[in-house]
Amino acid sequence: MSEVIDPPNTSSSEYEVHPHTKVVRGPKRASYDRELVHGIIDDALICHVGTVVNGRPAMIPTAHWRVNERIYIHGASKNRILASIAEGAEACLCITHLDGLVMARSAFHHSANYRSVVIYGKGEIVDDEEGKMEHSRLFVEKLEPGRWGQIRVPNKQELKATMFLGFDLAEVSAKVRTGDPVDDDEDYDLDVWAGVIPCVTQWQTPIDDTKIKPGFEGKGILSR
Amino acid sequence: MSEVIDPPNTSSSEYEVHPHTKVVRGPKRASYDRELVHGIIDDALICHVGTVVNGRPAMIPTAHWRVNERIYIHGASKNRILASIAEGAEACLCITHLDGLVMARSAFHHSANYRSVVIYGKGEIVDDEEGKMEHSRLFVEKLEPGRWGQIRVPNKQELKATMFLGFDLAEVSAKVRTGDPVDDDEDYDLDVWAGVIPCVTQWQTPIDDTKIKPGFEGKGILSR
Repeated sequence: MSEVIDPPNTSSSEYEVHPHTKVVRGPKRASYDRELVHGIIDDALICHVGTVVNGRPAMIPTAHWRVNERIYIHGASKNRILASIAEGAEACLCITHLDGLVMARSAFHHSANYRSVVIYGKGEIVDDEEGKMEHSRLFVEKLEPGRWGQIRVPNKQELKATMFLGFDLAEVSAKVRTGDPVDDDEDYDLDVWAGVIPCVTQWQTPIDDTKIKPGFEGKGILSR
Repeated sequence: MSEVIDPPNTSSSEYEVHPHTKVVRGPKRASYDRELVHGIIDDALICHVGTVVNGRPAMIPTAHWRVNERIYIHGASKNRILASIAEGAEACLCITHLDGLVMARSAFHHSANYRSVVIYGKGEIVDDEEGKMEHSRLFVEKLEPGRWGQIRVPNKQELKATMFLGFDLAEVSAKVRTGDPVDDDEDYDLDVWAGVIPCVTQWQTPIDDTKIKPGFEGKGILSR
């Protein structure tokens, strides 16, 4: 069985705290809980991937998916950021959900409710065709469960043009803020509304391709 | 007048293309249009900021706002990523709007509709009290226009504990994808729905702080 469908797993409910993942600012919001981290990763379709290219920071937004204790991204084999990571440059992946604005009674205590995960590590390239095919499937199935059986799967050329990179969930931390603003005692009497303005990612009615095959109009599935 | 309220401006409608901002992958989606870049920045409340700390990539999500040709962020003065940038480390800021999933007839052509901006540059610290106060105001007013007049403004200690960093919009590029999937000719006849599943950030009814001052219940404003 390919390594890509059998990634490392562990039984501890918490990730180990590394010097690099120890949350220094706002430690009360930090978490190393495995289930929480998995949930934050799985709830998101895109992450931001940063690395160092020729000594300079570089970043791209890209789709991701998770298999047990590994997170995967893909892109054009020639993408310079992915290529740098493939060549051994360390990466940093960040996933962020903005859940609401926290409107306090003082400017200083305005904040956001959010769930975020930061992952550090080197990427491992998936270089066998079987593994690439399996990850194409996992990506499409994350977008819409059941879709893989309906579409044309990648051909050899397409697999060759696509790079898949996996990152172990080892150096990982989460930060979460929820709930009310926390104001200074003396500010609670100020004449101003305070609270949270929540926000969610809202999926809308699917829009048919203008070149939709007759008979498939309006058959788009809203799976989230 | 402080530099922070009179940032650089230029009259050209396009940003200059730098070696670092030349979009190599998917150049047809690239844009250097000033108005487009401004719109993508202003439509978002948070960005991801990356830099290099001790030779390793590091990243945080954080709120941002824009004044003409400069984008600003803020955070705890002791934050190690902000401190690194303040000490001269180059930064990379990325703002991404996911606008929809592009469901194609082949796995390979699945994509996303999105608007993103990437900014490279060194940060300039706002170190005078007047400038910090003005940027506190700009941040709060972006969250909710008119709010600054109702809340307690930052005191000296709070301003001291907060670092504000500005980045010139000079090395900047946008990427935008819109519209239908683009499939290979021979795939259009496949028996599968294809199209776009749009998504938006939906703001919801404000939730009163449990310690709301009597008389202010239900007075939260949904300003976006």
